[in-house]
Amino acid sequence: MKVFLDEHEIRTSGGLTVVDITDDVATTVAASGIENGIACVYSPHTTCCVRVSEFENGFIGDFASLLQRLVPKESYYAHDDWDRRTENICEEDMEAGNGHSHCMAMLLGPAGESIPVRDGELALGGWQRILFLELDRERERHWLVQVVGD
Amino acid sequence: MKVFLDEHEIRTSGGLTVVDITDDVATTVAASGIENGIACVYSPHTTCCVRVSEFENGFIGDFASLLQRLVPKESYYAHDDWDRRTENICEEDMEAGNGHSHCMAMLLGPAGESIPVRDGELALGGWQRILFLELDRERERHWLVQVVGD
Amino acid sequence: MKVFLDEHEIRTSGGLTVVDITDDVATTVAASGIENGIACVYSPHTTCCVRVSEFENGFIGDFASLLQRLVPKESYYAHDDWDRRTENICEEDMEAGNGHSHCMAMLLGPAGESIPVRDGELALGGWQRILFLELDRERERHWLVQVVGD
Repeated sequence: MKVFLDEHEIRTSGGLTVVDITDDVATTVAASGIENGIACVYSPHTTCCVRVSEFENGFIGDFASLLQRLVPKESYYAHDDWDRRTENICEEDMEAGNGHSHCMAMLLGPAGESIPVRDGELALGGWQRILFLELDRERERHWLVQVVGD
Repeated sequence: MKVFLDEHEIRTSGGLTVVDITDDVATTVAASGIENGIACVYSPHTTCCVRVSEFENGFIGDFASLLQRLVPKESYYAHDDWDRRTENICEEDMEAGNGHSHCMAMLLGPAGESIPVRDGELALGGWQRILFLELDRERERHWLVQVVGD
Repeated sequence: MKVFLDEHEIRTSGGLTVVDITDDVATTVAASGIENGIACVYSPHTTCCVRVSEFENGFIGDFASLLQRLVPKESYYAHDDWDRRTENICEEDMEAGNGHSHCMAMLLGPAGESIPVRDGELALGGWQRILFLELDRERERHWLVQVVGD
């Protein structure tokens, strides 16, 4: 039984941008030497997430529009109300506010995705890609992949 | 330590239909001989997902109504705009369009669910069932379960 | 290779309340003796979920408002229509109805979160906390954590 962890850096663009990290995850799985198991791809951030989906630019734009409609940046967010907020203060967030980014991330679900590994490869379907979603402003991010198996 | 993978075929009905796959997953867990570990139930499709929830027909209908309200099929989707689309062309999707199905799948979260296995059984709660959700048209689909443990 | 399961009881408040269970999960990971692997934190309920996010009270309130807007308790739910419902009858749910709670849980995604374990610790980011979300009425709940690794 083996466990193999890898960490990757990424520079995101701001807004609802998506980076295809499939090839990097596949490289890690190959490097792990694990033939069969589970790969847990994980974002340690609270305004990003990792999601398996199709990477087609029209759809990516459609989904960004949907998210913005369901969770408008222009609404009131107590998270961004500096007259009221006392916890977890991060200077860099005070200018633009990111309450909507947090709500989007929570609505989108878990921080990561677990994908079966079969015969040394990710068991992705034909259209599936592993995507890293930035829901907040441009910055340095990172993500992890933990592979567990034989 | 053992790793055990199984793959299942499924014929879905179109639209927001749900199939209860709990018994098939349980059969795979039993066949694996794994007493304690994690079962990762996974859809390799981009317009389906696997989700653990209650299977009560009223609720399934309620949830379909909610999804249709949040992500209306009738909206404009660049994914379905064949005057503009250049990537990942799939002939069969050109007639009806499935931009809404992709958006629903992404909103619903990961492609799969990871469920603890305890004493040789899925650690599901009393009302929990494992559901396969079809968000697109009727077709042949498949899903995987990878069990890792002792 | 080790597998280590722990179960925790929790008394929730009603409504969209959130409990920070990070320290309990960390204690379980430490008790497991597992240095590297995956921790699967899991809710066996159908109107709760486990989610990794920031725990800042303003944001928690913002997210509750968002959920109530997207999935209003006041809408019609066939799940709560006792003239029509025949399946999975639970006496305690008949008074207030919880169709909206089920829809919220399904929309929020999986029942659990899988988090990498690295050097004996959860690989959480600086702002990440593990949260247990109650989407239904006040009651006794429990959650599991299954750790698999070396």
